[in-house]
Amino acid sequence: MALAAAKARLAALRTEMQRHGLHAYFVPSIDPHQSEYVPECWQRRKWLSGFSGSVGDIVVTQKHAGLWTDGRYHLQAERELAGTGFQLFKQGLREVPSLPEWVSRTLGRDEVLGVDPNVLSRPLAEALEAAATKAGGRLKLLETNLVDHIWQDRPPLPAGPVQPLSLEYAGEPTSEKLRRVREAMRRSGAEALVLTALDAIAWLYNIRGRDVDHNPVVISYGLVTSKEATLFVAEEKVTPALRKALGKKVRLCPYEEMGPALARLGKAKASVFVDSLSVNQWVLGKLKGAKLTIELSPIWRLKARKNPTELNGIRRAHVRDGVAVVRFLHWLEGAVRKGGVTEMTASAHLTALRAEGDRYQADSFEAISGYGPHGAIIHYRVTPDQDVPLRPEGIYLIDSGGQYLDGTTDITRTVLLGGEATAEQKDRFTRVLQGMIALSRSRFPAGTAGRQLDAFARHALWEAGLDYAHGTGHGVGCYLNVHEGPQAISATRCIGIPLEEGNVLSNEPGFYLPGAYGIRLENLMAVVPDEALAGREPPFFRFETLTLCPIERRLVDRGLLSIEERAWLDEYHARVRQTLTPLLSKDAAKWLAQATRPV
Amino acid sequence: MALAAAKARLAALRTEMQRHGLHAYFVPSIDPHQSEYVPECWQRRKWLSGFSGSVGDIVVTQKHAGLWTDGRYHLQAERELAGTGFQLFKQGLREVPSLPEWVSRTLGRDEVLGVDPNVLSRPLAEALEAAATKAGGRLKLLETNLVDHIWQDRPPLPAGPVQPLSLEYAGEPTSEKLRRVREAMRRSGAEALVLTALDAIAWLYNIRGRDVDHNPVVISYGLVTSKEATLFVAEEKVTPALRKALGKKVRLCPYEEMGPALARLGKAKASVFVDSLSVNQWVLGKLKGAKLTIELSPIWRLKARKNPTELNGIRRAHVRDGVAVVRFLHWLEGAVRKGGVTEMTASAHLTALRAEGDRYQADSFEAISGYGPHGAIIHYRVTPDQDVPLRPEGIYLIDSGGQYLDGTTDITRTVLLGGEATAEQKDRFTRVLQGMIALSRSRFPAGTAGRQLDAFARHALWEAGLDYAHGTGHGVGCYLNVHEGPQAISATRCIGIPLEEGNVLSNEPGFYLPGAYGIRLENLMAVVPDEALAGREPPFFRFETLTLCPIERRLVDRGLLSIEERAWLDEYHARVRQTLTPLLSKDAAKWLAQATRPV
Repeated sequence: MALAAAKARLAALRTEMQRHGLHAYFVPSIDPHQSEYVPECWQRRKWLSGFSGSVGDIVVTQKHAGLWTDGRYHLQAERELAGTGFQLFKQGLREVPSLPEWVSRTLGRDEVLGVDPNVLSRPLAEALEAAATKAGGRLKLLETNLVDHIWQDRPPLPAGPVQPLSLEYAGEPTSEKLRRVREAMRRSGAEALVLTALDAIAWLYNIRGRDVDHNPVVISYGLVTSKEATLFVAEEKVTPALRKALGKKVRLCPYEEMGPALARLGKAKASVFVDSLSVNQWVLGKLKGAKLTIELSPIWRLKARKNPTELNGIRRAHVRDGVAVVRFLHWLEGAVRKGGVTEMTASAHLTALRAEGDRYQADSFEAISGYGPHGAIIHYRVTPDQDVPLRPEGIYLIDSGGQYLDGTTDITRTVLLGGEATAEQKDRFTRVLQGMIALSRSRFPAGTAGRQLDAFARHALWEAGLDYAHGTGHGVGCYLNVHEGPQAISATRCIGIPLEEGNVLSNEPGFYLPGAYGIRLENLMAVVPDEALAGREPPFFRFETLTLCPIERRLVDRGLLSIEERAWLDEYHARVRQTLTPLLSKDAAKWLAQATRPV
Repeated sequence: MALAAAKARLAALRTEMQRHGLHAYFVPSIDPHQSEYVPECWQRRKWLSGFSGSVGDIVVTQKHAGLWTDGRYHLQAERELAGTGFQLFKQGLREVPSLPEWVSRTLGRDEVLGVDPNVLSRPLAEALEAAATKAGGRLKLLETNLVDHIWQDRPPLPAGPVQPLSLEYAGEPTSEKLRRVREAMRRSGAEALVLTALDAIAWLYNIRGRDVDHNPVVISYGLVTSKEATLFVAEEKVTPALRKALGKKVRLCPYEEMGPALARLGKAKASVFVDSLSVNQWVLGKLKGAKLTIELSPIWRLKARKNPTELNGIRRAHVRDGVAVVRFLHWLEGAVRKGGVTEMTASAHLTALRAEGDRYQADSFEAISGYGPHGAIIHYRVTPDQDVPLRPEGIYLIDSGGQYLDGTTDITRTVLLGGEATAEQKDRFTRVLQGMIALSRSRFPAGTAGRQLDAFARHALWEAGLDYAHGTGHGVGCYLNVHEGPQAISATRCIGIPLEEGNVLSNEPGFYLPGAYGIRLENLMAVVPDEALAGREPPFFRFETLTLCPIERRLVDRGLLSIEERAWLDEYHARVRQTLTPLLSKDAAKWLAQATRPV
């Protein structure tokens, strides 16, 4: 973005702020549904500042403009914000004030901080309210978004059609899902349940869409009462097929009707359940007068427990995904030797191979394709100016996934492109593998939360004084978001929700040596009953590994592995070989046979 | 308690309720300081109902009287409440309403639930407020406690003298502790810090007392501002020695002066820090007008990080404690063979042996002395009518500890009193031991919370579909409370606080077969730097085992242990033998040599 444009936008926003009597204005990166991927029309922070990272919040005053972002984006933000008039606040560094701290110091007495409540989460609302009050000023929730007033050529909301998802994939009709949701509502004494998270809506109504990248969701709101179930979605997105699929059990209303519907509930003093994780302040404001229960929506748990149809679909999707990744790794070996492959072209080739698979819809996220030192950047996203050719030496990390009609995949493999790995690299890779195996092999009683298991995946690294600065596993949707919560295998992200039968989670320990190389291994796993421990009270679970793809044998230090670990690896490789071989070309099958030899 | 007395007390309370215009009245078991051990004069729930368990809350209306207690006490409460007019609500059973749920259903519209705010915690205040509001009634905080009005011969508050703790044991003068506390106050912008937890006050002012059983604390309040530090304590407890020890840096005020002091802070609109874990509603009410920060008091963390003097004291206390327990186990073997020993007399003999040790002050809690099936009752407390003789066969569990001037101990050993253990018993014992060893051997980076390590201690049990229904470790004070938080090794009790250098925690996995036997092994451990991993960023910690006492070899299934586990056990036993042998009689030393042979 040209610097002049950035400055003009900032000036225009300040004029707009004056017009509304505001001394400060807050522009976050979230959208009204707190989605991980935000449609272009709601990327106001990016439009205003030019900073294109996925996370970053802005506060503008007449004198100052600050942008806060975390360690992943410090370098990128520095580059993109230079000369724009925005000051970068590097979150996570000592002595850098948090956004609320800065507000509490910068806002003057009796001054007003304005916010669009649509893009204000509950925790942040509390923090900003406290900060403004501490400063002697106040927080004001506005009716509109000031950035929209000055954003002339702002794109419209995505208008693609909503696709019904057939029972063949969903495994449970909406009528049955509604019955279970209403049962949960009754238990907590709620007359109405407000749906704000897009994947919760997509799950309940068995619909999918293309409104944002990678997440097959539809911009919408949902509302369930004991008698009615409503989907609030732009009329232009409604096809006859959708109308037919939803039938009489689900009412369709324009997206804009959600506000009045909430207001009616408030006026009627209804008992309303809103989701503590995804609700925004606009929804809470509209519900004024209602008796609110603000807790984890029952839908999170129902959605996370995949039904047998979903689990079978996910298993089948992983076979197709395994074929694509094996073809990719086989191709990579030859192509890198020939030359001309880069991080970007390799990643694009993998997308092309996935797209040849049945029921492929899209990639489930933007792949991380990192060679050498780039592999050590945990959230690396290759751009044309950072792209490097892959040479037949050193370590390459590729973290990618696909959206299939029957399931969502997410897999990371770290491979040696040629030459010899150092003893240190093998040691690190093997410890990461040991972590993945330890978690894969673990069995645990019902009631266990993912954060209790996280350390199993770190133990072998901790033994050597090593660790990785991310969680071990996230929940994964079924042809839905590749990141779904609140179940997780993580000390910080898991909020204590027990793992349940049918949960699908990633298992992805890693090791990163900045400036040198990165190692990560990732399989998806399903929580299944532990048949060998049947009849226990409480019941015991184990993990079924879903991902099918060899693990780089040339990076394994066999001597570090225990007998049990070797057995796990050999058995896993045998299963990968047996499942995928019939689906591969002769050449690829030959490569796979080599890649899956016993260690 | 005679039934007539119980009924008369209930009737008297109901009359008192009418006099105060109350329709319901709440009598919890906690005291104003939320202590684990409550002095007799504050045991109002026990006096009113006759139920003597450590946990149980009461709500009385004109028609109903309910008592809620957890699974540990269901049988005991049933027995003790029979015929008293109190209905028992067994917490934890399905379909049993919680106390707030019951209030919301039972209180009538416009009716009033009365509570003494001194014994009302914040979370419960919120729950009761919500319940009363839901019922259309309201919660009223009273100025007095109605039980006190009718309790004629209520004992006075304990009046024993306050003992100064010399620097030789405390390791840090109050002046230096105050400096660090004030630094923390400045960081959170607080002008005053309110101290409500008795062990926090004892730690800060280097005082100890005998006001309650087992916890060497003093009934008091504390208040720290940037200029002053005040100890609010009954004047009769203040000796010249205390006055001298506290010097000019600490002001002494009568206990009753705390209320006016808080009210002054409120009136001055001061910024006041109160401890979220131990504050009661009375304190919050008195502070009305103040700007409150309600968070974890900085003292928790400071107190939990034992200084070098404390750690050395704790190590020395464990040597003395090990001598006592080894003498006990040696004696037990002979005494049980001779006959006449019971659970109670065995436990009393251990207390006597501990009391022979230097610097012994008291037991650190009421010992759990459980033979056979009694060992399977996790919180078993032997009473004369449950007491059984120990015979030279089967399994005996003893969980006990001492308060020494230089440290607090807590140890559990499970021993075979004679005969042969079954293969199952050995398997279970060995898995418990493997859990203890896994946790003892673990190393982990700074920032790791105890709840992340809890599963290490369960892994060997989980492998066999077994588990234990309690946490693995609690924090332990230094000549202070045997249970101190918030650091813990537990999935539920640990609130996410990272373990820090100098923390002392228990390591106590177990296995319980109801009706048959119980197994628990418990060592205390200190968090220390991992010298072998020096220089890592973040730094790595390991555990130093403090407890010195052999582990029953006759219950170990050697074949289940890995080479590393055997090495740990043999090294531990060698250390126990080397340390304790010079301090034992010839006979006991001979016994110890046998008990600590390599496996």
